[in-house]
Amino acid sequence: MKLAILGVGLIGGSLGLCLKRALGDQIYITGLCRTETSMNRAMDLGAVDFASSNLEKVVGDADFIFLSPPVLQIIPLVEKILPFVKSGAILTDAGSTKKFICESMKKILPPDIYFVAGHPMAGREKSGVSAATPDLFRCKAYVLVTEENESAAQIDARRKLIEILKFTDARFLTISVDAHDRNVSAISHIPHLAAAALVNLLEESHEDLDSCAKMIGGGFKDTTRIAESNADMWADICMTNTDAILYHLSTLE
Amino acid sequence: MKLAILGVGLIGGSLGLCLKRALGDQIYITGLCRTETSMNRAMDLGAVDFASSNLEKVVGDADFIFLSPPVLQIIPLVEKILPFVKSGAILTDAGSTKKFICESMKKILPPDIYFVAGHPMAGREKSGVSAATPDLFRCKAYVLVTEENESAAQIDARRKLIEILKFTDARFLTISVDAHDRNVSAISHIPHLAAAALVNLLEESHEDLDSCAKMIGGGFKDTTRIAESNADMWADICMTNTDAILYHLSTLE
Repeated sequence: MKLAILGVGLIGGSLGLCLKRALGDQIYITGLCRTETSMNRAMDLGAVDFASSNLEKVVGDADFIFLSPPVLQIIPLVEKILPFVKSGAILTDAGSTKKFICESMKKILPPDIYFVAGHPMAGREKSGVSAATPDLFRCKAYVLVTEENESAAQIDARRKLIEILKFTDARFLTISVDAHDRNVSAISHIPHLAAAALVNLLEESHEDLDSCAKMIGGGFKDTTRIAESNADMWADICMTNTDAILYHLSTLE
Repeated sequence: MKLAILGVGLIGGSLGLCLKRALGDQIYITGLCRTETSMNRAMDLGAVDFASSNLEKVVGDADFIFLSPPVLQIIPLVEKILPFVKSGAILTDAGSTKKFICESMKKILPPDIYFVAGHPMAGREKSGVSAATPDLFRCKAYVLVTEENESAAQIDARRKLIEILKFTDARFLTISVDAHDRNVSAISHIPHLAAAALVNLLEESHEDLDSCAKMIGGGFKDTTRIAESNADMWADICMTNTDAILYHLSTLE
């Protein structure tokens, strides 16, 4: 069984660590990394068996391809790898918004390559493969998106994917694209925006930062912990879930 | 040395536990409780030596009086106890806003009774004496408010108070009334309001609460933990720090 992880960061790296621990030599994992340093780190940590920046070498023979870059980088990446993806391969992603990705995939995927949209709810305020851990997904929600009138082949692709992902010990649930994007706006995107706004408020309100810092307690720290999350990732999320986020922001106001 | 704690809840109870542990029989602590049940619980836990709902019995001979009810209940309570407070006694409070309390105290206190406005930044989302712990204040900020042109007697009263409060192992800092109220608005009051709004949003946005609950992760939980704080206390805070809160809320928006 061959798995390609495109983006060996917090999420992709944790998946690699987890599956190598559970399956050992039964799985061969390749990883797409940009730099020599990140390739070495991914291999040294044991998140992948082989790392490269060469798309063909990474995805060439893969049965499963796990896409974990920020939302807006997923479709351009899929367009680049498609010439090397073998027939019958199953693609899945870890993007935080699903409608934009699902609709774009339909336009570019040939009928013999499958896509199962996924969202492991296991983010952290840290990023990069150094923050990866094999237990990251354990007991966390892992959403797999369903659509109306799915083909038997699509249902079979999702079943095969779950057969591997189950080793993460995540709690799997299926939900429609629209419900997913609305739910994550309310429980994740708006809380992230609020946390970031609370941090920015300190600067913009022109209070004395020095005495504020001395007085800060557990409430402020917990409420704003996620404001330290990866900014690129969150920019993409805001750009691809605008309807739900704007509706919820105005309700919050 | 005699200390009266008026309101033996999370904050008052923790102070009692801490000082009894540090000072043993060198301190005699009385506690004002409303019900028989809360009197027994405060004494059983060892937070006070004697508990009663009788104001005179509790404050009659006290050197120090610690006021820990919600902000708007402090001044009415002080008006009731004043006939029984001995000359030279030092009052202090744990109210989360200071301007309203300091200005009101000036109007009602005779010159031989001192007030040192305090704010231990050690709140939790739990309340009541059962949540009290002797280490609650340890390494937390404990603000003591200063004013311009303080009398020597006022400075001496603050020094005497710190001599006792130092056993909490809190980090003491002094700050002006106005700076305190603005700072706590930015680092505590607005985060609490944001956390409460994030929880309310889930209901008001009419998303499917069942699937939202399954998808909720650590981000939502941490960001909204303090939304469970005591509602009466927070109502009083909003009523007595309106200028700073409204200014910061509009900056946050």
